[in-house]
Amino acid sequence: PSGRKVLIVYAHQEPKSFNGSLKNIAVEELSKQGCSVTVSDLYAMHFEPRATRNDIVGSLHNSELFNYEVEAGKAYRRGGLSSDLIEEQKKVQEADLLIFQFPLYWFSMPAIMKGWMDRVLAEGFAYDFPNCYDSGLLKNKLALFSFTTGGSKEMYGKETTSGDIRYVLWPMQHGIMHFCGVKVLAPNICFSPGRVSEENRKQMLNAWAQRLKTIWKEEPINCSAEWYFK
Amino acid sequence: PSGRKVLIVYAHQEPKSFNGSLKNIAVEELSKQGCSVTVSDLYAMHFEPRATRNDIVGSLHNSELFNYEVEAGKAYRRGGLSSDLIEEQKKVQEADLLIFQFPLYWFSMPAIMKGWMDRVLAEGFAYDFPNCYDSGLLKNKLALFSFTTGGSKEMYGKETTSGDIRYVLWPMQHGIMHFCGVKVLAPNICFSPGRVSEENRKQMLNAWAQRLKTIWKEEPINCSAEWYFK
Repeated sequence: PSGRKVLIVYAHQEPKSFNGSLKNIAVEELSKQGCSVTVSDLYAMHFEPRATRNDIVGSLHNSELFNYEVEAGKAYRRGGLSSDLIEEQKKVQEADLLIFQFPLYWFSMPAIMKGWMDRVLAEGFAYDFPNCYDSGLLKNKLALFSFTTGGSKEMYGKETTSGDIRYVLWPMQHGIMHFCGVKVLAPNICFSPGRVSEENRKQMLNAWAQRLKTIWKEEPINCSAEWYFK
Repeated sequence: PSGRKVLIVYAHQEPKSFNGSLKNIAVEELSKQGCSVTVSDLYAMHFEPRATRNDIVGSLHNSELFNYEVEAGKAYRRGGLSSDLIEEQKKVQEADLLIFQFPLYWFSMPAIMKGWMDRVLAEGFAYDFPNCYDSGLLKNKLALFSFTTGGSKEMYGKETTSGDIRYVLWPMQHGIMHFCGVKVLAPNICFSPGRVSEENRKQMLNAWAQRLKTIWKEEPINCSAEWYFK
C-alpha cells in the first residue's frame, strides 16, 4: 500500500472525541503503511455547507433562473468554482481511498459533511450523464463510511423501531458514492461509544486499527439494493 | 382549518424555481383557507447549517470535551441556545403542520435543511429519552416532505439501480420526524420538473394546489419499516 493516497473527510467539533480518536488512528495506521494521508477537518476549516451562487466565480450561465447543479457543472468545466471546492476536488482526484468519519446525526451525516457532498461532487467532476453508478467519473476509487451512533447495536435491528442500520447507509453509500462510480468498502460502525465502558471503547478503537492493517486487501461490498434491504 | 398554523421550511436559492412555485402555492392555498402560514426561507435567511459551540450562549457544561447533543440539550433547558434556534423552535412549537420544501440533493435534503434538523430539533425540545418515536415531544403535529427530483419517476423503481424513492424517505420521515413524535403525511414528489414539458409542470403545480384543499382531512401514513421496504 506504500504510495497509496487516502483522504479522510472528518466532521467532529472536538479533537478529543471518540470520532477524533478514530480519525487519528486512521492517520497513524495508514501513514505507518507508507500511505500518504490528507485530512479535511471540516469544522476546523469552517467548511461552508450551503450551495449558493458564491460557489461560482464570475458570471452565471443563467442569472435569471439560478440552477445550482447546472451552474456548478459549467463553472467546474471552465475552472470557475470557488477555491475551497477546487482544493477539495484535487484531494478527491488524487485519493485512492476516501474515509468519511463522523457521528450519525438524524440517521445521516452532519450537515457540514452533507454540504461537502453537495458542493464538492459537482456535475462534470463526479458524474456526467449518462456517466453515473458503475460508469461514474470517480471510478477506481474506494470509499469507507466510519461513524458512531447514539443508539446501541440492539436498537438497530430489522425488527426494531429504528430498523436495520443498513437502511441509513443507502443514501450515503449508494446514492452518493456508488452514484459517482466509487466502490464501497464495508462500513466501520461504532455503536454508542458514549454509553459503553472504557474497555469497550478501547476494543472498538483497536478493532479499527486492526482492520486498517489489511484494508487494501478488502473486497468492496456489492452495493445494490439487496445488500441494504434483502 | 381556519386558525391552524403551518410552518414551511423552504430550501431553494432561486425564488423563480419550481420549488419556489410549490412553496408559493402552499402559502396561497393555506392562507386562503384561513391558516396562518410562516415560511423559513433558509437560503434567504443565510441559515447556519453547522452545529458548533456558537449555538450555545454562555459557558459550557463540559468545555474539556465538547459534545454537541449534550450541550445543546442543556442550553435548551436554561434558555441558552442562540437566538436563531430559539426563533425556529418557537415556529415549530406553534405549528400544526410542518412542510419541508426542497430539491432532492444526493438522495437526501440539501445541507442547509439538514442543518436546520441538526440544530433546531434539540434534545429536550424535540425528544428526550425515552421520549422518542410515538412519545416524541413534538406529537400532535404533522409533517409533509415536498420535494423535486432530478431523475424521472421511472428511474426510482424497486428494480432499478436508483431503487424505490421511498428508500430515501426513511431517514427523513422516520429517522427525524417520526423520531420526534410527528405524524407524517404522504410525501409530495415532483419527478424531474426540469426535464418535462411546461404542460406537465403546470399539472404538478395544480395537483399540489388541489391536494392542499383537503390536506387537513388526510390520514398520516403508517410510518414503520413496511411502508418503506415492504
